[in-house]
Amino acid sequence: MEFDLIARIRARAPTRHDVVLGIGDDAALLQVPEGRQLVVAMDTLNSGVHFPEGTAPVDIGWKSLAVNLSDLAAMGARPAWCTLSLSLPEADAAWIDGFLDGFLALAKEFDVALVGGDTTRGPLSVCVTAHGLVEPARALRRDGARVGDDVWVTGTLGDAAAALALLQRGEAVADALRVRLDRPVPRVAAGQALAGIAHACIDVSDGLLADLGHVCAASGVGAAVQVDRLPASPALSDMGVDDALRRQWQASGGDDYELCFSAAAASRHRIAQAMSDLQVSVRRIGSIVVGDGVDVLQADGARWRPSRPGYRHFSD
Amino acid sequence: MEFDLIARIRARAPTRHDVVLGIGDDAALLQVPEGRQLVVAMDTLNSGVHFPEGTAPVDIGWKSLAVNLSDLAAMGARPAWCTLSLSLPEADAAWIDGFLDGFLALAKEFDVALVGGDTTRGPLSVCVTAHGLVEPARALRRDGARVGDDVWVTGTLGDAAAALALLQRGEAVADALRVRLDRPVPRVAAGQALAGIAHACIDVSDGLLADLGHVCAASGVGAAVQVDRLPASPALSDMGVDDALRRQWQASGGDDYELCFSAAAASRHRIAQAMSDLQVSVRRIGSIVVGDGVDVLQADGARWRPSRPGYRHFSD
Repeated sequence: MEFDLIARIRARAPTRHDVVLGIGDDAALLQVPEGRQLVVAMDTLNSGVHFPEGTAPVDIGWKSLAVNLSDLAAMGARPAWCTLSLSLPEADAAWIDGFLDGFLALAKEFDVALVGGDTTRGPLSVCVTAHGLVEPARALRRDGARVGDDVWVTGTLGDAAAALALLQRGEAVADALRVRLDRPVPRVAAGQALAGIAHACIDVSDGLLADLGHVCAASGVGAAVQVDRLPASPALSDMGVDDALRRQWQASGGDDYELCFSAAAASRHRIAQAMSDLQVSVRRIGSIVVGDGVDVLQADGARWRPSRPGYRHFSD
Repeated sequence: MEFDLIARIRARAPTRHDVVLGIGDDAALLQVPEGRQLVVAMDTLNSGVHFPEGTAPVDIGWKSLAVNLSDLAAMGARPAWCTLSLSLPEADAAWIDGFLDGFLALAKEFDVALVGGDTTRGPLSVCVTAHGLVEPARALRRDGARVGDDVWVTGTLGDAAAALALLQRGEAVADALRVRLDRPVPRVAAGQALAGIAHACIDVSDGLLADLGHVCAASGVGAAVQVDRLPASPALSDMGVDDALRRQWQASGGDDYELCFSAAAASRHRIAQAMSDLQVSVRRIGSIVVGDGVDVLQADGARWRPSRPGYRHFSD
């Protein structure tokens, strides 16, 4: 049965010129170009933890690759190859086909070859390893933030958290919100454009405050963020929820898969131009300061406190 | 809780000079040496499928890396880096410590750096991606077997299958057999020594006949194997089981993690010498023939048939 599944995957797996040997041997064989470093991200999505049971396979397929490409984006890397380990309670060709529809649509969009992995019996779980390439010394790390840097974020925050909250309450969810939860688009082009400009970068998966907190801890600095400057989508703004709840989704919600980065004030124009060229919205939301942790400030300078502290969980 | 677990893993993770950035960022950053191709293997072990529930964490740790290094060995690659995704029902520091004892003992033995991954909540499952390096055109593939080649196997076959059969019947298992099931040692040095000599290679994970069958299918050839020539360990020979059962374990048992390879008859002496230098036993068990599939022959030339056909399963 495994061989049928692998054959099914192999028949549809996209390849690239630098894949010497893809699916079908003991391991994949890949040609890393000279003058590039290898970037490797690995993330697992478990049913009932990272996606609700009953999520459409096409969405699971998309998201399992998206969260990994988002990690590559946060490093400023260009995606190249991935491997996929799929645990399924039973071999289900229709499920696999749906899963591949989502997974491969995203792989095609970012020219990612699926080069190996395995299929096993077990509770529904998807583990993906994504490989990217970056020029030496241009990778975006968490530990490069400097006091005086601006703090920026791409796109908008809080849509996925709002969608999840509505789903959990059994309420209707606007498509514009739902798509942010089910089909996040990794900021791959933005990450590559920021390589060599930004000092530090992370993708917003656990929630802005938690993730910016990781940057601060790794860099030995603090951050001050203006809560009023957190970007909201029209769909989120139009929900009519009170400001406190909206801000909480934006600041701590998670699953945004935007990039949060720090850069010198002297780079403002260059960043704005680069993001404008890519049609990616970007906003300065604060600055890097002496200290540790993230302070969130209101317009009047008072400290804003989320009613629920940063997204603390066992799982990723 | 996740951060505690990651910190626990990070504190013990071995590194290497070519790891630019290991655990702790969005992704690992690795320096692939010039003149080497990248070899990537990914295998998952699920509780109750790939190891019995209640298996000691130290053994799960060892085996989860071993099966991946065995895939690299079968490609003739030198191991370099790995990533680990660990799904656990609950954060359990003692379990993690035991797991790492096994995982890192093997990583240290083969100079493998643990550079990233994630920890998630979910049913017990371990997914590992192993990265190795090989010189171009020297990788051992499945598709290179040629008619007239000898078929060889390293070490001995059937110990792990015998141990599993005894365990499943609740009988006592000799340590020499048990260790082959719980702590397989990947044939890393042998694989590297065979790169550039062997025409085709695979590691024996699903059982000799099934795996040699993969080589035949990929290469467009058949194989004829002498069942009397399948190597047995003293522990297996001393069990006192009848020949039919022992042969079945050897031919179809799985979990051996030996290398099965084909090579020109002209390479016999070179192979014997190379394996002798490494103190790895090796035996010629048959030859590559025109046709497809694997024929297993008895000493009298009659066809030998296992009472249970090749290890067919959904899982890996």
